[in-house]
Amino acid sequence: MTKKIDFYFDFISPYSFLAHKKIINSNDRIKFNYKAILLGGLHNLGGITAPAFNERKMKNMKNDCTLIAEKNKIDFTWNDKFPINSLYLMRGYLFINNNKKDKYFDLCFDAYWKNNEDISNGETIKNILSRCEINHNDFETGIKDQKIKDELKNLTNIAFNNDIFGAPTFVINNNLYWGQDRLGYALDELNN
Amino acid sequence: MTKKIDFYFDFISPYSFLAHKKIINSNDRIKFNYKAILLGGLHNLGGITAPAFNERKMKNMKNDCTLIAEKNKIDFTWNDKFPINSLYLMRGYLFINNNKKDKYFDLCFDAYWKNNEDISNGETIKNILSRCEINHNDFETGIKDQKIKDELKNLTNIAFNNDIFGAPTFVINNNLYWGQDRLGYALDELNN
Repeated sequence: MTKKIDFYFDFISPYSFLAHKKIINSNDRIKFNYKAILLGGLHNLGGITAPAFNERKMKNMKNDCTLIAEKNKIDFTWNDKFPINSLYLMRGYLFINNNKKDKYFDLCFDAYWKNNEDISNGETIKNILSRCEINHNDFETGIKDQKIKDELKNLTNIAFNNDIFGAPTFVINNNLYWGQDRLGYALDELNN
Repeated sequence: MTKKIDFYFDFISPYSFLAHKKIINSNDRIKFNYKAILLGGLHNLGGITAPAFNERKMKNMKNDCTLIAEKNKIDFTWNDKFPINSLYLMRGYLFINNNKKDKYFDLCFDAYWKNNEDISNGETIKNILSRCEINHNDFETGIKDQKIKDELKNLTNIAFNNDIFGAPTFVINNNLYWGQDRLGYALDELNN
């Protein structure tokens, strides 16, 4: 079995989007396992105030993400509706079939961080599901299923218990790399 | 007058040390104005909990700094006494004569982040002062001078009012870059 890098993400995280686009642009997607977590939940567990809730950090994050995107030729628009509650979309990632996860993942991220759409809005979600050929009613039922609810909670708890406190986080050979700035280090470790 | 990058620092900050060493290794010191701030005070003003006070962030910071140092061939040792109160040394930077600031700056940073010394300890400070040919009694009196106390407080307040919330921060052409990861972007902006 080929070794892969675990990539902990939440659609709410602009730095996770930027890391993913860097990965796509380098044709490296195959090197990663995508691990869904609820970032807000993780912050709560870790007693962390997200940068979105600090005026100066929020302002810096917007400028910083825009600049990283520009330097890396990534099509990016800061979302007017930030932060939102990503709970349903993250549960959705766990609910849908494996063969649709990549497309759903890309469409959710693009809607929020490229197209400035409100991904907590029902019409936006319907549009994403339709493009993935996922039945909307099945999805609505699925994300309310106790098993799916518990799965996202468990994945977030496991991440917390493994010292993860933010997104994106990359884990390879038991080494943890936090932030899109450390993507290169994680790839170096993969090749070690 | 040649344009320079403002570099906001505190000796307490390992990422400021790493940024400074990158600058030294590229012979770029001349391109920077070093601006003393009290990082703890800045965090208090901004309602920010420093990573040193979060178990997971602290653990990550230690690993991350060690790895950045390794990748950049910087001689670095995580300090056993972290965090300490850097107030006296930061006031000292303001008190001493301009022609001694660079040497004092390097010795303070090296003592704390290269040699694993306790820079809040009197003997360590005496040793630094002696190597800079600074009279110890003058220094002790100087750092208790109300003018020096007010100066550090004012510089920290000014930084806060200019949206700065951490160290290192680089400012050039009214653009703010936070973190040693953004040193390259600040240098790009200098050349714009």
